[in-house]
Amino acid sequence: MPMDIGGGIPAWRLADAEIERLVDEDLRFGDLTTRALGIGGRPGRMSFAARPAGQSTVAPPTMVLSGVDEAARLLARMGATVTFAAPSGGRYPVGAPLLTAEGPAAALHGGWKVAQTVMEWASGVATATCEIVQAARAVRSDIAVLCTRKSIPFTRQLSLKAVIDGGGEVHRLGLSDTLLVFPEHRVFLGGDLGAAIAALKRRVPERAVMVEVTSEAEALAALDAQADVIQLEKFSPNAVADLARRITRRGDGRPIIAAAGGINAGNSAAYAAAGADTLVTSAPFYAKPVDIQVHIVAT
Amino acid sequence: MPMDIGGGIPAWRLADAEIERLVDEDLRFGDLTTRALGIGGRPGRMSFAARPAGQSTVAPPTMVLSGVDEAARLLARMGATVTFAAPSGGRYPVGAPLLTAEGPAAALHGGWKVAQTVMEWASGVATATCEIVQAARAVRSDIAVLCTRKSIPFTRQLSLKAVIDGGGEVHRLGLSDTLLVFPEHRVFLGGDLGAAIAALKRRVPERAVMVEVTSEAEALAALDAQADVIQLEKFSPNAVADLARRITRRGDGRPIIAAAGGINAGNSAAYAAAGADTLVTSAPFYAKPVDIQVHIVAT
Amino acid sequence: MPMDIGGGIPAWRLADAEIERLVDEDLRFGDLTTRALGIGGRPGRMSFAARPAGQSTVAPPTMVLSGVDEAARLLARMGATVTFAAPSGGRYPVGAPLLTAEGPAAALHGGWKVAQTVMEWASGVATATCEIVQAARAVRSDIAVLCTRKSIPFTRQLSLKAVIDGGGEVHRLGLSDTLLVFPEHRVFLGGDLGAAIAALKRRVPERAVMVEVTSEAEALAALDAQADVIQLEKFSPNAVADLARRITRRGDGRPIIAAAGGINAGNSAAYAAAGADTLVTSAPFYAKPVDIQVHIVAT
Amino acid sequence: MPMDIGGGIPAWRLADAEIERLVDEDLRFGDLTTRALGIGGRPGRMSFAARPAGQSTVAPPTMVLSGVDEAARLLARMGATVTFAAPSGGRYPVGAPLLTAEGPAAALHGGWKVAQTVMEWASGVATATCEIVQAARAVRSDIAVLCTRKSIPFTRQLSLKAVIDGGGEVHRLGLSDTLLVFPEHRVFLGGDLGAAIAALKRRVPERAVMVEVTSEAEALAALDAQADVIQLEKFSPNAVADLARRITRRGDGRPIIAAAGGINAGNSAAYAAAGADTLVTSAPFYAKPVDIQVHIVAT
Amino acid sequence: MPMDIGGGIPAWRLADAEIERLVDEDLRFGDLTTRALGIGGRPGRMSFAARPAGQSTVAPPTMVLSGVDEAARLLARMGATVTFAAPSGGRYPVGAPLLTAEGPAAALHGGWKVAQTVMEWASGVATATCEIVQAARAVRSDIAVLCTRKSIPFTRQLSLKAVIDGGGEVHRLGLSDTLLVFPEHRVFLGGDLGAAIAALKRRVPERAVMVEVTSEAEALAALDAQADVIQLEKFSPNAVADLARRITRRGDGRPIIAAAGGINAGNSAAYAAAGADTLVTSAPFYAKPVDIQVHIVAT
Amino acid sequence: MPMDIGGGIPAWRLADAEIERLVDEDLRFGDLTTRALGIGGRPGRMSFAARPAGQSTVAPPTMVLSGVDEAARLLARMGATVTFAAPSGGRYPVGAPLLTAEGPAAALHGGWKVAQTVMEWASGVATATCEIVQAARAVRSDIAVLCTRKSIPFTRQLSLKAVIDGGGEVHRLGLSDTLLVFPEHRVFLGGDLGAAIAALKRRVPERAVMVEVTSEAEALAALDAQADVIQLEKFSPNAVADLARRITRRGDGRPIIAAAGGINAGNSAAYAAAGADTLVTSAPFYAKPVDIQVHIVAT
Repeated sequence: MPMDIGGGIPAWRLADAEIERLVDEDLRFGDLTTRALGIGGRPGRMSFAARPAGQSTVAPPTMVLSGVDEAARLLARMGATVTFAAPSGGRYPVGAPLLTAEGPAAALHGGWKVAQTVMEWASGVATATCEIVQAARAVRSDIAVLCTRKSIPFTRQLSLKAVIDGGGEVHRLGLSDTLLVFPEHRVFLGGDLGAAIAALKRRVPERAVMVEVTSEAEALAALDAQADVIQLEKFSPNAVADLARRITRRGDGRPIIAAAGGINAGNSAAYAAAGADTLVTSAPFYAKPVDIQVHIVAT
Repeated sequence: MPMDIGGGIPAWRLADAEIERLVDEDLRFGDLTTRALGIGGRPGRMSFAARPAGQSTVAPPTMVLSGVDEAARLLARMGATVTFAAPSGGRYPVGAPLLTAEGPAAALHGGWKVAQTVMEWASGVATATCEIVQAARAVRSDIAVLCTRKSIPFTRQLSLKAVIDGGGEVHRLGLSDTLLVFPEHRVFLGGDLGAAIAALKRRVPERAVMVEVTSEAEALAALDAQADVIQLEKFSPNAVADLARRITRRGDGRPIIAAAGGINAGNSAAYAAAGADTLVTSAPFYAKPVDIQVHIVAT
Repeated sequence: MPMDIGGGIPAWRLADAEIERLVDEDLRFGDLTTRALGIGGRPGRMSFAARPAGQSTVAPPTMVLSGVDEAARLLARMGATVTFAAPSGGRYPVGAPLLTAEGPAAALHGGWKVAQTVMEWASGVATATCEIVQAARAVRSDIAVLCTRKSIPFTRQLSLKAVIDGGGEVHRLGLSDTLLVFPEHRVFLGGDLGAAIAALKRRVPERAVMVEVTSEAEALAALDAQADVIQLEKFSPNAVADLARRITRRGDGRPIIAAAGGINAGNSAAYAAAGADTLVTSAPFYAKPVDIQVHIVAT
Repeated sequence: MPMDIGGGIPAWRLADAEIERLVDEDLRFGDLTTRALGIGGRPGRMSFAARPAGQSTVAPPTMVLSGVDEAARLLARMGATVTFAAPSGGRYPVGAPLLTAEGPAAALHGGWKVAQTVMEWASGVATATCEIVQAARAVRSDIAVLCTRKSIPFTRQLSLKAVIDGGGEVHRLGLSDTLLVFPEHRVFLGGDLGAAIAALKRRVPERAVMVEVTSEAEALAALDAQADVIQLEKFSPNAVADLARRITRRGDGRPIIAAAGGINAGNSAAYAAAGADTLVTSAPFYAKPVDIQVHIVAT
Repeated sequence: MPMDIGGGIPAWRLADAEIERLVDEDLRFGDLTTRALGIGGRPGRMSFAARPAGQSTVAPPTMVLSGVDEAARLLARMGATVTFAAPSGGRYPVGAPLLTAEGPAAALHGGWKVAQTVMEWASGVATATCEIVQAARAVRSDIAVLCTRKSIPFTRQLSLKAVIDGGGEVHRLGLSDTLLVFPEHRVFLGGDLGAAIAALKRRVPERAVMVEVTSEAEALAALDAQADVIQLEKFSPNAVADLARRITRRGDGRPIIAAAGGINAGNSAAYAAAGADTLVTSAPFYAKPVDIQVHIVAT
Repeated sequence: MPMDIGGGIPAWRLADAEIERLVDEDLRFGDLTTRALGIGGRPGRMSFAARPAGQSTVAPPTMVLSGVDEAARLLARMGATVTFAAPSGGRYPVGAPLLTAEGPAAALHGGWKVAQTVMEWASGVATATCEIVQAARAVRSDIAVLCTRKSIPFTRQLSLKAVIDGGGEVHRLGLSDTLLVFPEHRVFLGGDLGAAIAALKRRVPERAVMVEVTSEAEALAALDAQADVIQLEKFSPNAVADLARRITRRGDGRPIIAAAGGINAGNSAAYAAAGADTLVTSAPFYAKPVDIQVHIVAT
């Protein structure tokens, strides 16, 4: 159920240098085995197909595809011709074709595992995101699932793209783009939270002010202080529901309530039902990769 | 139980540009919140401590540390002073201090989550590797656990370093450094496996020839063809044991039997007991991150 | 009057590779003249001092320093010892010392003009920002001056850092971090603005929604549609004042009114007086560089 | 009046990595607004047209185009099809079409402002160069206008390319390619200028020796010392004329007189009339950008 | 006599960034002469043809081509159209056409010398490799010639590719991919060689163990210690022959004898005749470049 | 006899990223052998000393050192402490100490061969340059030896630095910094050489005009056309002498005569005696590396 983000347009495009970095990671000096076997020039075809992801009982045994743009680009760079590529963000049942490439064995063997790994891993992120989204939207159709900046090192661009392929969106790109006051900021603040938020709004008036809270008292203080987003860290669904009842929204619906900390496909429906407006999670970054089957034939 | 690899010397060192890439991923334009709160210059101390990993019932509730060199280097680059760093590859119980840094709040907040994420994720890989190693070595003390080239995109250097911190070693760095004949190579080979292996040994005589097999018949053919490593793909422990009994080693102990496909901390002991000389696995790359607690105080 | 952003802490730090890029731009193969004169090893001292900027009659003849961190780092990289560096973001009158370095003539001549250029240009941006800020704050003490993403190509990190040194802040880092609906978006939207903004708030609930308008009618539509920021493109101060009177703020002070298009040091006070909450400008990026005097002596 | 440099061939081509750096500066994580509006896939057309530059009363209200190659390449990289691009270095009146691209809204919005900024800024440099050239050549048709190495940090390739598009040429690429003796070199030289120039000619015989002088006496000393280029720093046109009368050229026309320091479109004719053979200036680097109008329609 | 490695498939492909690095090394700011002559747009054709290499009396006066892929790619990047390119790894007599390109003079002159240099130098490496291979295989048809990691700094990818074009293969890609015990390792080992090799086989069981020896006694110790490759450093052919007679191979033909140190086209036959299984050499990296004639015509 | 270029100051400094590129080329994933032997942490000392270069009978058996800065920097980066480094550009007899480092075996083994190779190769270039310089200056003490842009791909910075260490200088950094009219330019020029040179002087008045000629008639035409440098391509010493007698220099000594094509240590004296003012050569780039002895001990 990935959100339609505009006609199959990818969320963004990795630079060529990033694609070449993937190649460099695995075969800077070519494919020794294929070269030494002397088979590099023989023509063949390589097909990638879906196998079940099985990471959640909520989701049907389908996978959400991601990483396919990057896989196709690196195969082309190896010298293969990509003859079929399923759209990124689509959901595919077991056996569905995902990507097909033709060319000399050197190109196919050179790109095989890197292409497979990037699709398996990125689709794992996308599928896990989708499972959380699906479960939550079954309860509340317009809830947003946002992923944090705690992506695996060096993977931010690919990870967040997979999140979007899975129907999620970005919580924070990093430290530079958003205002989020942690309790760890408050240890350096002499004054009260209200004064701090007022200063943020004065200095950076165009950005929403988010405040992470760990108790209902802090949440209410953030409400008083005119926070735009109150991020509830590790609240149970019941505690979220309690708070939601106590919060009076302003005319524009703010502050919104974001539930964060331990959100996953198993509890996202409960948090949605409890009244969270948005779910903030790092879980998809660490999802198990989906299983993609590769078949190579000589032609 | 990470293998002593020589007095606490790291397996390798990431380039400075890689450390700066981590910074660039998260805060190319600084920490907006800290800046707008006006607290960047206030002094503080940040401490990282272990929380239990809990990924296996075999392993005690300890974690194996990895990523700490990179975390320390990026904190220093942010302007903090690292006053303590536990050795990489060490095992730490709940609560053990891992890393401490002092400096202005801007440096601490700027590096906090990136440092935490790199340690949590890399230590997850190291800990998962260690669990497989421990379980297998309880049965066979000298067995090697080797991780594949299926690391998460862009993470090969960090991933394999974490594997080594966990007591594992490298199966293949990539396609350029090893000879491994897959069934997918054979579809391009007209002739028999013996001729192919002979050609490999003639052309690349200094490298071991590994052959992946999916049946006992193929395994015996690889034995006849003088393979150096017979990699059993998704054999059950029983099937490994059957084969181990049928294989006659040459004087130098070769061919060795490598069990691959689905190896994890739950079955590594069984594979070791079955007679595998080495275990080949991708599982640690996708391990859950360990949980590391961060505490920040103003000073 | 640069805002105190926390004890002289720089807003961010350029990567070493960026500093080396500055060196590579100017002297990849060293300083030919100094080398051929055979004077590279002779010791000397180089001093940088302020000359008046004179870009505005509102501002006194002082300059706001920026680029000094980068200048100092590149001089150190050339082999000089930096013995004095004035804090970035400080205001300096004519003749004030800004940076002093000692070392062999090769280091001083190698770094001289690159260091001077980066400080002159970045301080030009900072000083121009400060002039806009000063003029506006004389009228409204808490108004924010935010610079756009229209920085000169390849200079975004340095340009925005200079803006902050000058007392400004960031409007948008780029396209990825903010929601700003242009009229050019609306040509692709079939439906009404209200539905579009509602969709943005649903999909990206944690970010403020900014809408650029070119008429009072559009501004009122944006108000109805619950925009968080109404960006008035090329409104006269009078038109801003008219609108400010007609807009009813919500409880949290939103929507805020941002005046954009043609803002400069000559009119920022008028816009502030008219009721703009924030000023959005690209002008500082194209400010004339300040004049910094360099004096080199043999020692 | 850009000099014909060979049939519309660009002076040089930026590397792909530089084009991708422009993209990375603005939208590493895509265009959030377009994505969240769900309009990324809708087809459209984007047209760029000239508006008057108006930086000098000498020049007619036309602009000289630069940066168009880079704009076109980045739009193509975003997924748009460039259907028209006016030649770089051409002069265009108000309203003249400069660049047209078609494609999905995501590609158009993704590239819009970056393409516009690079053309506006580079064309500003080119136009300012052209104004200096035009004014000077009205007096002396073969005079050369050369731009210094004091370009804005990180922009050397683009800046000098724009200078050439405007009819100028390169004074120095940097410190490595030319011999230019500053007074600041002489503080390290014990001996006389003649000996120093003789040493330069002996050690680097294939390069012209340029000497910067700040007085007529120094200029005559440089003449005696057989300098190839005497660079007059901040001489008035009258002082240049005085010197020009006193200098006897050698058979090959050398030394040539270069006027430097404060050269601009307002005084270049005077310097040309005074007898300067070449004008050396940094002014175009800091020119105001030209104004380019962008029109986007849905198709 | 380059070994057929699979239908003319290159061993590997350099990243685009590497090709652009070649351009950047020579003409970051274009071709000044061609630009200033105003001839950049005139059409022409450039042809590269073989001239004799003459580096060995064993080899006939032919050259082995390498670097042609890179030359063709950089010419295309300069704006030329490559109309003919001889296959890499082929042997060409005097006068044979190697590469032809058409396009504007700016493209031809821009790429000329860089293309010529990369082909001349890489073909020098390939030809020198081929001469060693040919001489050795005249005596022993299946002997392998392997080149070391002592390639000229920054050229590893191009150097080893040229080696493969010349019929050689890789000894070691670097320190990370192979086990080779030097005498310099033994100074840090308290124990005996046998224990050390046993440890290597236990910890890294899938890689062959190579041992460098400098005397027959050490060679026999390595044999006893079950080394897979005994690398004889600077043994004379007679000493190799003596040893070869004393070594009993295991069933799989191991250990193999590698002759290293001072191997060249003049003595490779003697080493082959003496019983070396493989020759390890750095000589080709330092071979003289072959001579390639370039002809440019206007069209 | 390297020219004193100013008190032991290096001609230029490679970027840190280039030093890390050397490391990445050889051991991105560390030193497998040292790691697997478990000796990485044992302390030791590594000493580099000169062995004779022997490339010319003219030069005494000494070597000129180059690459030592880079070797020292990479050893430090590996974790070793450099305790001695001989100055770059110095001449050293057999056995002279060049570089000494101490540290754990992992650091010493990690850097050993890369450090050795960079010094051996770069010193080979420097020594070969010095031999040409020495031979020529024995005849004409002030003659300049200039190396071309035909350096081995990717080595320009290191190669030219070695040339300077050897007492040479740069002929051309590349295509962007100098005017050199080849016969291959003339095929695109309709008019005469005089007009072309006049155009060059008009458009790029600050640079010397060099003309490559292949006959005496062309040389005299270049003289008439006021070239600054007449580069004689593959003239014999006698032909150079004939021409030198026929050329009348202008008052500033121009045009100078540059002998190019086939210049080496064996004939440089003859060309100097024949009257060449400067020698232009590519020979040092392809010199054999010098031999540097490495000794490692445990401490």
